Amino acid sequence: MHEEEIELKGHIIDSMILPRVFDKIMDMDGSFEVLKFDIGKRKTDHSYARILVKGKTRKHLDEILAELQKIGANIPTVNNVELERVKKEGVAPDNFYSTTNHPTSIRYKDRWIEVKYPEMDCVVVVEDNSAVCKPIGDLKRGNLVVVGHKGVRVKPPERPRGHLGVFEFMSSEVSSEKPTRTLTKKVAMAIKGIKRRGGKIAVVVGPAVVHSGASNSLAKMIHGGYVDLLLAGNGMAVHDIEYAIYGTSLGINLKTGEITEHGHRNHLRTINMIREVGSIKDAVKKGIVKKGIMYELVKSEIPFLLSGSIRDDGPLPDVVTDVIEAQRRMRNLLRDIDMVLMFSTMLHSIAVGNLLPSYVKTICVDINPSTVTKLMDRGSAQALGIVTDVGEFIPELVKELT
Amino acid sequence: MHEEEIELKGHIIDSMILPRVFDKIMDMDGSFEVLKFDIGKRKTDHSYARILVKGKTRKHLDEILAELQKIGANIPTVNNVELERVKKEGVAPDNFYSTTNHPTSIRYKDRWIEVKYPEMDCVVVVEDNSAVCKPIGDLKRGNLVVVGHKGVRVKPPERPRGHLGVFEFMSSEVSSEKPTRTLTKKVAMAIKGIKRRGGKIAVVVGPAVVHSGASNSLAKMIHGGYVDLLLAGNGMAVHDIEYAIYGTSLGINLKTGEITEHGHRNHLRTINMIREVGSIKDAVKKGIVKKGIMYELVKSEIPFLLSGSIRDDGPLPDVVTDVIEAQRRMRNLLRDIDMVLMFSTMLHSIAVGNLLPSYVKTICVDINPSTVTKLMDRGSAQALGIVTDVGEFIPELVKELT
Amino acid sequence: MHEEEIELKGHIIDSMILPRVFDKIMDMDGSFEVLKFDIGKRKTDHSYARILVKGKTRKHLDEILAELQKIGANIPTVNNVELERVKKEGVAPDNFYSTTNHPTSIRYKDRWIEVKYPEMDCVVVVEDNSAVCKPIGDLKRGNLVVVGHKGVRVKPPERPRGHLGVFEFMSSEVSSEKPTRTLTKKVAMAIKGIKRRGGKIAVVVGPAVVHSGASNSLAKMIHGGYVDLLLAGNGMAVHDIEYAIYGTSLGINLKTGEITEHGHRNHLRTINMIREVGSIKDAVKKGIVKKGIMYELVKSEIPFLLSGSIRDDGPLPDVVTDVIEAQRRMRNLLRDIDMVLMFSTMLHSIAVGNLLPSYVKTICVDINPSTVTKLMDRGSAQALGIVTDVGEFIPELVKELT
Amino acid sequence: MHEEEIELKGHIIDSMILPRVFDKIMDMDGSFEVLKFDIGKRKTDHSYARILVKGKTRKHLDEILAELQKIGANIPTVNNVELERVKKEGVAPDNFYSTTNHPTSIRYKDRWIEVKYPEMDCVVVVEDNSAVCKPIGDLKRGNLVVVGHKGVRVKPPERPRGHLGVFEFMSSEVSSEKPTRTLTKKVAMAIKGIKRRGGKIAVVVGPAVVHSGASNSLAKMIHGGYVDLLLAGNGMAVHDIEYAIYGTSLGINLKTGEITEHGHRNHLRTINMIREVGSIKDAVKKGIVKKGIMYELVKSEIPFLLSGSIRDDGPLPDVVTDVIEAQRRMRNLLRDIDMVLMFSTMLHSIAVGNLLPSYVKTICVDINPSTVTKLMDRGSAQALGIVTDVGEFIPELVKELT
Repeated sequence: MHEEEIELKGHIIDSMILPRVFDKIMDMDGSFEVLKFDIGKRKTDHSYARILVKGKTRKHLDEILAELQKIGANIPTVNNVELERVKKEGVAPDNFYSTTNHPTSIRYKDRWIEVKYPEMDCVVVVEDNSAVCKPIGDLKRGNLVVVGHKGVRVKPPERPRGHLGVFEFMSSEVSSEKPTRTLTKKVAMAIKGIKRRGGKIAVVVGPAVVHSGASNSLAKMIHGGYVDLLLAGNGMAVHDIEYAIYGTSLGINLKTGEITEHGHRNHLRTINMIREVGSIKDAVKKGIVKKGIMYELVKSEIPFLLSGSIRDDGPLPDVVTDVIEAQRRMRNLLRDIDMVLMFSTMLHSIAVGNLLPSYVKTICVDINPSTVTKLMDRGSAQALGIVTDVGEFIPELVKELT
Repeated sequence: MHEEEIELKGHIIDSMILPRVFDKIMDMDGSFEVLKFDIGKRKTDHSYARILVKGKTRKHLDEILAELQKIGANIPTVNNVELERVKKEGVAPDNFYSTTNHPTSIRYKDRWIEVKYPEMDCVVVVEDNSAVCKPIGDLKRGNLVVVGHKGVRVKPPERPRGHLGVFEFMSSEVSSEKPTRTLTKKVAMAIKGIKRRGGKIAVVVGPAVVHSGASNSLAKMIHGGYVDLLLAGNGMAVHDIEYAIYGTSLGINLKTGEITEHGHRNHLRTINMIREVGSIKDAVKKGIVKKGIMYELVKSEIPFLLSGSIRDDGPLPDVVTDVIEAQRRMRNLLRDIDMVLMFSTMLHSIAVGNLLPSYVKTICVDINPSTVTKLMDRGSAQALGIVTDVGEFIPELVKELT
Repeated sequence: MHEEEIELKGHIIDSMILPRVFDKIMDMDGSFEVLKFDIGKRKTDHSYARILVKGKTRKHLDEILAELQKIGANIPTVNNVELERVKKEGVAPDNFYSTTNHPTSIRYKDRWIEVKYPEMDCVVVVEDNSAVCKPIGDLKRGNLVVVGHKGVRVKPPERPRGHLGVFEFMSSEVSSEKPTRTLTKKVAMAIKGIKRRGGKIAVVVGPAVVHSGASNSLAKMIHGGYVDLLLAGNGMAVHDIEYAIYGTSLGINLKTGEITEHGHRNHLRTINMIREVGSIKDAVKKGIVKKGIMYELVKSEIPFLLSGSIRDDGPLPDVVTDVIEAQRRMRNLLRDIDMVLMFSTMLHSIAVGNLLPSYVKTICVDINPSTVTKLMDRGSAQALGIVTDVGEFIPELVKELT
Repeated sequence: MHEEEIELKGHIIDSMILPRVFDKIMDMDGSFEVLKFDIGKRKTDHSYARILVKGKTRKHLDEILAELQKIGANIPTVNNVELERVKKEGVAPDNFYSTTNHPTSIRYKDRWIEVKYPEMDCVVVVEDNSAVCKPIGDLKRGNLVVVGHKGVRVKPPERPRGHLGVFEFMSSEVSSEKPTRTLTKKVAMAIKGIKRRGGKIAVVVGPAVVHSGASNSLAKMIHGGYVDLLLAGNGMAVHDIEYAIYGTSLGINLKTGEITEHGHRNHLRTINMIREVGSIKDAVKKGIVKKGIMYELVKSEIPFLLSGSIRDDGPLPDVVTDVIEAQRRMRNLLRDIDMVLMFSTMLHSIAVGNLLPSYVKTICVDINPSTVTKLMDRGSAQALGIVTDVGEFIPELVKELT
């Protein structure tokens, strides 16, 4: 039997950290002994536990410990992280430590330093006494990468105590049977709160926002200063510009609901037109595009990124067609964002979710409950899901905001 | 080879009647010869076709003809219907003619008479020179029932010509990617049109209307005189009354979105309370229920029917627990209804859809596209589906109405 | 401040009982003090906690305590239950104790007695020194009903320790991205285990089982002695018999996949034919029905119940059309059942789920994830969901069984 | 009033071509006069129609004619196509003709020539007396592009007459209530038919194929020679290789259904390992990957393409990260494919659907009906949808094949 001590601190019972530690050890067929346990006597008190974890082999124990760390257990024995050098560009050392999206510290040269830009499924690179999360693909030869699990501390979010703030009112349960307008009001309050504190908000937008007739409202929201970054794909931008130029989205007149046009004609024409002038910015400047989501972004000089997908028609000249380059740019753009609103796009929501630390407030609005479920399954457990029609939600949200 | 002539009249090409006739004959492995074909030369002209249908045996031909009649083909040879007497209560003669939900006439004593209350999957009973649609279960011994397919004429709806009215703007295609607020406006216009012409409107309401916070709006719609009949189940009524009394629906405070209560406590208490006073009407009279959907119905003396299901808690004393009795009452209540709005209930929507003639305007609003798809699969082809959140749709609709 | 002590015993941390107690107190705005806490030192050790719960008023404290009891907290102060007499048939005393579906005991005349047939959302009636769960609607005048929360103990299921049995392998998470055939094997093992121990299995069956072509397999499963009770609706039985007689289900030939028939003709004929002979049993006896699900049930004299719904055509003479009577019969039939398999029916699955104690193994197989989600939302938290096509699942399951 | 004659030939009524022509003219507010109409007198006879189409302005008429052409109407007046030169790379002339996915001919120098590689939403380029479909992005300066609609003929698929082949048995209606195993048999027959005639089959594969435990079966299908091309993304390939190396897929042991591993650990390790050796091919050669889908492809030297998406981890070195380059390669690889099977991937299915001519047999298998619906909405109307679990479907299909 191999064994090692771990430590847990904070609201570890009601934040489910202790139960999850016990669960995990049993799931992985290890065993444990509780050495010390001080329970918080009152609502606001912290608890403390020291637990001896046992595995059948050293490897078994290490695997268990690696998992417990991700949940928030600390290995109190003071160990510095182990580091190994990258030998081949874009390839991590064999035993690399793979990150969670929670705030993480490493013990380096006998001091705890915080890992910058926490992001799931990355590695930790140490450079100049600082530590940073990087995707495997971005590793350069010679980079020092954390291996094993020693000297790593993870701090998963705790359940907030006392009265619930606007972000905690929603159970993480995904259901369409919730009082929609009440939720809308709460989201509006949360947005206002973020902006009042000088925070930044990103929106991730799918084409259904345009089809469902909500683009005027989203444009107004951008105009009102509630959006600091927009992430989307080629489709959303084309539909928005098609609507700005022709009043249609995939040929459907959004005002009358009638099919005024002919299949994909206006859609392709729109793409061709923007390709001709060179960029969306140029189209706005030349007065070709006079309203809509993209127009407001250009006018207010708000950054946006259009990422490519293999479904794209055209695409628009602004689209970043290399997906790894697109990830890189999204990663940079998201670094100082405090809240992300995801509207009706599974691909982009999950892609953005992958890049976010767990402390960024994330709200995912989709008529399809499986989008929210998948987002959370893929690790963005902090995401709050609202199952409703963006065609109604966004107009109502904007009314609450203004 | 057995053969018989059929006749088609009207906008038989663009209303898909002729193509469907050809399709059906080929699907059923029959063959045909076109004897005469006069195509409508202009948009407004009718077409006419006379077709010789051929089957391998008399039975094969009869089966084909029976199907063609349902689509709208007439057998021009002047034949009176064949009738047979019911020998056992609730059992039809073997070769009974099973009805469609389209307007139907029968040739009886050398005159065409219209069958009253057309409804799918019923039989036609002839009494006192009039004909009426009846479910098999309602047959009495001695009733005269139409058998075979001779002397029966069915008139399926034609696609309207020229510019589309409010009811035709929506393709029957079910999709969440439609401009929702535009659809809402169109539905409001349709409702106003019906009321202006003195028509009657029924609503079929599921519990999600209350959970999603739309019950205040629906109550306002009833108060405003836009509802002439409400059909629902025990659940919806209990949630509505729970909300009226406690401000919660299944324990969730609809105003704050918080869980203020404890499981199903208020739910059961509500049921118990109404059981104690004897009926919803009595609860309104005694001032126990002071607002909400059921309150407004009682106050305005608008008929409602609560039909039972095996999932019911309680149930409320008003619920008709025998489902066949409930069908019977719904059938009677629906007889002079011109438009039905279905809100978020698969069970009740399909049940009501089964009872409606195909000329009753039917709009089904549900966040789950499969509700609409199933409704149409079950034969209510006239239903228009709007895939959206009733929690947003109903408040917006009521705003448009008032 | 009002306060009372509660006690928790068992695997209260990893079975989430303690965390949920803390959660609930904080959600309800109460507070607490931990008086004693002995944590299980090893995997197999039990834990023990004594907690002082505080509420602002007596009513507030009582509400909190009522909720904690449902989670599994006991109030150690030895109190007998309080009882009140029913004054009106079918109406409970005002402050009735509403039940959970967990094993429950009451302290009556200074002894703990177990409440028979635990079922959610009912009341506890005491008669002749025994206690039984009853729905409000079944209360007779003079019945003694438990009121308040004193002297009641609830024992929610604990998470099993050590290696997982066949029933624990599935996370309760509902997803279609699971290794389906592995799940099928595990379910087959669970069924065999139940039968080996002399246990009883009920199946709840929707019409899709027939449409998707799985009825031959289910018939084989019944024939093989793996089914001790079948619960379904009119639709399933009609489709099964239609298939037995005509080879079609709603007109689709299940062997060739072709539409060989004509709308609902065979469907209605089937209903009419059974109505004529009087019952399904008679139809089997007379040789009209020679195979299928219903045939095997009749042949093997396995009890079945067909419950009515407002969507029913006909219905078959065997259908119990009064839904409250149907509930009553289901309740009785389910009393000695150890495992329930639910196949593709939301209405019947939730109805049956409502009647089951939480210790009955429940597996719900549906292609639509929302059926499983709703079942669990409605309180049947023990249900395990498998999101797959019953048309493939049942044949494969039966192959594993035989 | 401006007017022009059009001509329709073939089974124009039952193949819905004539009804759709009438529909479209009326939808677009034009009018018409039928000049000549010869209806096919028997099942096997062709019909012929000459129709005078009228628009309010020349532009209006042209728009109508452009739409009618897409449906299959020909403009009999012998006109050569009009061509215009590309002035800017990747930008089409303003009035470009946008293609359908149907077989298309153009009248060039008084001869009809067939447009190669028909694909929706492209333009037609004329070079060296031949015509080819190209996406706008691939246009080079100086290319001659078809503009307007003159001299273009489109031939949409006709509904086949007589007894239905294996491909026609399924209604295009998407439903989970179909006899699954019957469908599986039919698909197996269709595959065998294609292979017997020397045809080629592509599979488009999503990660759920691995998660649901069907990868062994798909590997067997590849080994058996039934697959000539595989299109997928990074995720599917990583999961498949993770399973080959570790027996897990995202940490779930596919054989036992248990979580044997730890989040995304094996997933990332797999990516890192393949990055280290350089490619999947190298990993197979070096004996690191010894079974599975990718293994069989490499062993049998069957071409595959992994296209990138912004959700990708890693990615594997084989992934084409530029989406436009990926489209280009898919387009080339698909050129001689006769049948495409799509398994559980919305993104890749729609992307591939976009590139296919309408005569390529396409079967889309997904547990989520919306994947199939969206595929068809996006223009791949020839796709047949089977709503079932790939985890059951593929093993069963492979059993039927072998």
